[in-house]
Amino acid sequence: METQVLMDNLWVMLGTILVFFMLGGFILLEAGSTRMKNAGHIAGKTIFTAGIGALVFWAVGYGFIYGEGNAFIGLSNFFYGDASTVEEGLTPAVDFMFQMMFALVSLTIAFGGFAERAKLSAYVIFAVLFSALIYPVVAHWIWGGGWLGEHGKQDFAGSTVVHLTGAMAALAATVILKPRIGKYNKNGSSNEIAGHNQVYTALGVLILWVGWFGFNAGSTFGVADGFFGFVGLNTQLAAAAGAIAAMFIAWVVSGKADVPTTLNGALAGLVAITASCGFVEPWAAVVIGLVGGLIVFYSMKFFDKAKIDDPIFALSVHGTVGIWGTLSNGLFAVPSLSTDIGWGQAGLFYGGGFTQLGVQILGVAASGVYAFVISFIILKVMDKALGGIRVTEEEEIIGLDLSEHGSYGYPESLSAPNEKAGA
Amino acid sequence: METQVLMDNLWVMLGTILVFFMLGGFILLEAGSTRMKNAGHIAGKTIFTAGIGALVFWAVGYGFIYGEGNAFIGLSNFFYGDASTVEEGLTPAVDFMFQMMFALVSLTIAFGGFAERAKLSAYVIFAVLFSALIYPVVAHWIWGGGWLGEHGKQDFAGSTVVHLTGAMAALAATVILKPRIGKYNKNGSSNEIAGHNQVYTALGVLILWVGWFGFNAGSTFGVADGFFGFVGLNTQLAAAAGAIAAMFIAWVVSGKADVPTTLNGALAGLVAITASCGFVEPWAAVVIGLVGGLIVFYSMKFFDKAKIDDPIFALSVHGTVGIWGTLSNGLFAVPSLSTDIGWGQAGLFYGGGFTQLGVQILGVAASGVYAFVISFIILKVMDKALGGIRVTEEEEIIGLDLSEHGSYGYPESLSAPNEKAGA
Amino acid sequence: METQVLMDNLWVMLGTILVFFMLGGFILLEAGSTRMKNAGHIAGKTIFTAGIGALVFWAVGYGFIYGEGNAFIGLSNFFYGDASTVEEGLTPAVDFMFQMMFALVSLTIAFGGFAERAKLSAYVIFAVLFSALIYPVVAHWIWGGGWLGEHGKQDFAGSTVVHLTGAMAALAATVILKPRIGKYNKNGSSNEIAGHNQVYTALGVLILWVGWFGFNAGSTFGVADGFFGFVGLNTQLAAAAGAIAAMFIAWVVSGKADVPTTLNGALAGLVAITASCGFVEPWAAVVIGLVGGLIVFYSMKFFDKAKIDDPIFALSVHGTVGIWGTLSNGLFAVPSLSTDIGWGQAGLFYGGGFTQLGVQILGVAASGVYAFVISFIILKVMDKALGGIRVTEEEEIIGLDLSEHGSYGYPESLSAPNEKAGA
Repeated sequence: METQVLMDNLWVMLGTILVFFMLGGFILLEAGSTRMKNAGHIAGKTIFTAGIGALVFWAVGYGFIYGEGNAFIGLSNFFYGDASTVEEGLTPAVDFMFQMMFALVSLTIAFGGFAERAKLSAYVIFAVLFSALIYPVVAHWIWGGGWLGEHGKQDFAGSTVVHLTGAMAALAATVILKPRIGKYNKNGSSNEIAGHNQVYTALGVLILWVGWFGFNAGSTFGVADGFFGFVGLNTQLAAAAGAIAAMFIAWVVSGKADVPTTLNGALAGLVAITASCGFVEPWAAVVIGLVGGLIVFYSMKFFDKAKIDDPIFALSVHGTVGIWGTLSNGLFAVPSLSTDIGWGQAGLFYGGGFTQLGVQILGVAASGVYAFVISFIILKVMDKALGGIRVTEEEEIIGLDLSEHGSYGYPESLSAPNEKAGA
Repeated sequence: METQVLMDNLWVMLGTILVFFMLGGFILLEAGSTRMKNAGHIAGKTIFTAGIGALVFWAVGYGFIYGEGNAFIGLSNFFYGDASTVEEGLTPAVDFMFQMMFALVSLTIAFGGFAERAKLSAYVIFAVLFSALIYPVVAHWIWGGGWLGEHGKQDFAGSTVVHLTGAMAALAATVILKPRIGKYNKNGSSNEIAGHNQVYTALGVLILWVGWFGFNAGSTFGVADGFFGFVGLNTQLAAAAGAIAAMFIAWVVSGKADVPTTLNGALAGLVAITASCGFVEPWAAVVIGLVGGLIVFYSMKFFDKAKIDDPIFALSVHGTVGIWGTLSNGLFAVPSLSTDIGWGQAGLFYGGGFTQLGVQILGVAASGVYAFVISFIILKVMDKALGGIRVTEEEEIIGLDLSEHGSYGYPESLSAPNEKAGA
Repeated sequence: METQVLMDNLWVMLGTILVFFMLGGFILLEAGSTRMKNAGHIAGKTIFTAGIGALVFWAVGYGFIYGEGNAFIGLSNFFYGDASTVEEGLTPAVDFMFQMMFALVSLTIAFGGFAERAKLSAYVIFAVLFSALIYPVVAHWIWGGGWLGEHGKQDFAGSTVVHLTGAMAALAATVILKPRIGKYNKNGSSNEIAGHNQVYTALGVLILWVGWFGFNAGSTFGVADGFFGFVGLNTQLAAAAGAIAAMFIAWVVSGKADVPTTLNGALAGLVAITASCGFVEPWAAVVIGLVGGLIVFYSMKFFDKAKIDDPIFALSVHGTVGIWGTLSNGLFAVPSLSTDIGWGQAGLFYGGGFTQLGVQILGVAASGVYAFVISFIILKVMDKALGGIRVTEEEEIIGLDLSEHGSYGYPESLSAPNEKAGA
C-alpha cells in the first residue's frame, strides 16, 4: 500500500476514534441536562443504543448507504460483504468504521427528543429502525450516490445527514411523547426543568468539541496537503464564536449569562460550521459560528413558547442550527478556496451563488421532511403496538432509572418511594 | 528513518496514549461502582499506583519481560538500558511506553479485587510486587520469548497477559480480604451494594471502549496495509454485541435491564475479542462478543453465589471472559485471514483447530495459576507482616477516604462521624 | 507536499487535539477543587474563556508572537493573514492551532487565581487582555524571535511561556482579590476549604496527563526519528515520580497521604519536565519529577502560611514548579543527547553548564516579572473601573453559580437561600 494511503488510513482511523468519543460527550451533556432520577438510564442507554446502532449498521446500514442500488437506496454490501468495493483508497474497515460512527452520533442526537419520558422498549426498537431505515436513506441521497448528491447537494461533514436527520427524528419523538410532567402550566406558561449537573454538561461540550475535530477534519478522508488543519481551524473558530455569541445574547436579553446557553452556543458553532468547514475562509467561520450562537438562543426560546419540550435542546442545536449551517454554505463558500489550498476536488463542486443555495435548500427540505415523516410514522405505529411509548405518570415521577432499570443511578442520593407515595 | 517506520511509530504512540487514557475509564468505572465514602480513595489510588507501576516497569519490568534471559524470565535492559535492542523497527521509547501502559492496565484490573476494604499500604506494596514479579513473568512467557510463546501460545493484545493476569491477582486479593461488611447475611443470602454513580460507570465504559482501539488496534505495532482498521472493526462489533447480549439476558432472566450489567457486557465484548481481534472475521467478532456478554452475566451470578465479593466485577469481566476470549481464538481463528488481508506474519502462527485450542488452554492454565499463586503468597505474607491488609471494621464503615487519606472525596455530601458514632 | 511533512502535520494536529483536551482536565480539576456552589460557573467559564482566548489569538495573539516586529513584540499576521510565512514545513493552519491551544492553556492556568470570588465581567475582560497583551509578549520573547530566544533561552514546551506566565497572572489576581471568606481566621491560622469532588480532581489530572503527551511530545513539531517517543517517555516518568514523591512526603510529614497532594504531585512532575523533556535522560526525568513532587508539597504549605489563598494550587503547581522545571534544564540537559538520538537541532542550542543556567534564570525572571506586573496593573485598573473585580460578600456566600449565572450547577443538591438567610 502506498505511503500516503497508509497515512490517510491513520488519519481517518484517528477521526473514527474521536467521533466515537463524542458519545462520551453526549453521555455527559444529556445526563447533565436532565434530572438525577433519570441519570443512570440516560447514561446507560447511550451505550446500548450505540451497540444496537453499530450492529444494524454492520448488517444493513452501510449497504443501504453505499451499496449498489438506485437513487433512493443502496442494496448490496450487507454484513460488511464486499465493503471494499466502495471508497477507494482507504482500507475498507477504516472507511466502514468512520461511517458507522457518524450513524451512531445521529442516533444519539435523535434520542435527545426522548429524554426523561420514553420507555426502554421504545429506545430499543427505534434504535433499530432509525439505524436501518432513516439515517441510511438520507446518507445515501447525499453521500452514497443518491439523487441529492447527483444534484450537487454539499454537506462536508454532515450538517444535514447527521445533525438535521437526528434532530428531525427528535422532533417527531418530542411531538408524540408530549411535554414532561411539570414543564407547562395550565395557564400556558412554562417552567424550567433544570439539568442536575452543569459540570457534566460543560465537560460534555468540551468532549464533543474535541471529537468534532475528528468529525469535521476527519471528513477530509486523508492527509493531502494538510488540509485537515484548515478544516480544524475553521471548526475551532466557529465553536469559539458560537459560545461567546450565545453567552452575550443571553446576558443582554435575559440579564443572565446562563451556563447552559453558553454551552449550547459552543455546540451551535460546531454544528453550524460542519457543512462548510472545508469551503469557507476563517473569518467566515467566525461569522457562521457567531450567527449560530445567536440562532440557538432564539430557537430555544421559540420551542419553549411553542410548547415543544426539548430537554437537551437537540431541536435547536442540531435542527435549527443544522439548517443554518447547510444554508450558510451557499452564502460563504469560496469556489476557488479549496483549489488554492490544494484540495482540488472542492473547486469542482462549487459554482456558489443562488444555484448552490437553491440546491442546499432543496437538500435540507427533502432530508428534513423524510426524516421527520418516517420517524413520525414509526413512532406512531410503535405507540399503538406497545400500548404507548411513554412511561406511566407514576414511573415518570419516580424516574426512569428505577422504572426501566430497577435501580437509581445515584442510590446514595435518591431513594425509592414506597409504592403509595410514588404516585 | 524510513517513512513507514515513522508512521508505525506515530500509530503506536497514539495507541500508547489511548491505552493510558483507559486509566481514566477505570477511575470512573471503579468510583462509580463503589460507594461515596470510598470514592476519593479509589480515584486517587489509580493515579499513584500508575505512578508506582510506571517506575517499576522502567526499573525492572521491561527487563524481566524483554531482556535476555531464559524461558522463565528476562534478565537485562533494566532502567531503559539498551532497550533499543528489542522490538526492531519501532523507536525504543515508543515500544517501551506502549508496553508500560499494558502493565499499568493489568495492575489496575488487579486492584479491582481490593476495592473498599484494603489498606493504603497494601496498595503501595502490592503495586511494586505485581509490577515486578507477576505481570512481567507472564508477559515474558507469552510475548517476551518465554516458553509459552515458544509453544505457539497466541494472545493478540493481552486477553491472557493483561486481563487474566490482573483478574487472577484480583481473585487472590478478594479471597484473602474476604467480603465487605454487609455483603452477605448470616443466612447465606447476599445483598447488593450498589455503586454510587452510574453516570461515572457509563462514561468509564465509554472511555475504556475508546482506549481499547489503542489496546487492540495499536497491537498491530504498525500501519502495514491499514490492518489496524480491521482489528478496530472487530473490536467495535464485539463490544456492541456484548452490551446488547448482557442487557437482554438480564432483562429476560431477572426482569430488569439493569445498567451495570449492560455496561459490563460492553466490557466483556471488549475483553473477549482482545485475544483474537486480528485473527477472526467480523461475523465471528459479533459471536465472540455476544457470548462474552452472556458469560459475564452468569459469571457475576456465580461469584455472588460463591460468596466471592467482587465489587467491580473484575473477576467476571477480565477473568472469566478473558478465558473465553483466549479460547475463542482457537475456535474462530482463520489461518489464511491474516495473509489475505495482508498481514503476513499471522498466517504463520496459526494452524487452527485442536492443537491451537490445546496450546491456548495450556497458556490460560499456566498463566492463571502462576498469577493466582504468586499473588496469593505475596498477599498472605503482606497480611502477616502488616498486621492485616484489611482496614479495621470501624475504618471500613467510615470509609477509606477518611481512614486512609484524611478527608472525604465528597466533603459537602458526607461528614465524618464523631468517634463514638463511627464504630 | 512531501510525505514526512504530511506526517509532521498529522502528528502536530494530534498534539493540537490533545492540548485542547487538557481544558477538559482543567474543568474537572478546578470544579473538583472548589465548592459545589461555584461548580457550574467554574466549568462554564472554562468554555467561554477558551472561546475568547481563541478569537483574540486569531485576531492579534498569533501576530504579536510570530509576526514581523522587534525584540519585544511581533506586529504582522493578524487575523490569520499570511500566517503561512512563519514556521516552515507545517501547514499554516496546523501550526496556528497548535500555538493557539498553548495560549488557551496558559489563560486557563491564570484563572486558577480567580476561583470562587471574581466577577464574571472580570473573567471576560481579563481573558481578552491576557490573550492579547501578556501571553503573546512572553511567547514572542522566547519562541517568536524575541530577545530571550536570541540570548539562548530554552523552553522546550512551555515551562516558562505557558506555565509560569499563567501562574504569575494567577498570583497577581489572588493578591488583588484577597483570600476567600473563611479561609483565614483572625488569629492568623488558616482553614482548609476542601474541594467538593475528588473523583473530578483525579480524572482531571489523568486527562491533563494524557493531554501532556500532546503538549510535550507534540512540541517536537514532527515525527523525525520518532523523537516524540523519547519526549513522551520522559514525560511519563516525571509524572509518575512526582505523584509518588508528593504522596510520600505528605504521608511522612503530615501523617496523611492526602489525595489532592498526590494529584498535585503528578501535575508537578508534568510541569517540571516540560522545559527539558527533550534534553535529558530518562533517569534525570525521574529526578526532575521527583523533586517537583517534593517542591509542590512545600510550596503549597508556603503559600498557605503566607496567607495567599490559591484555591486550585496554580501558584505552586505551575509557578514554583514551573521555575524548577526551567532551571532543572540547566542542570540536567545533556548537550549531545539530542544529537545522539537523532534530533540534530537540539545539540546546537545547548552549551550546558553555568552559562545556560544563567540564561534560564534570566528568562524566568524577566518573563515572570513581566507577566506579574502587567497582570497586576491590568487587574488594578479593572478593579477601579468595575467598582471591584470581586463579587460582594453576599454573592460569594450564595455562590457564583447563582450570582453570576442565575442558577446553581447542582440545582437538586443546592437551593437558593431566601434573601435574608443568604447574607
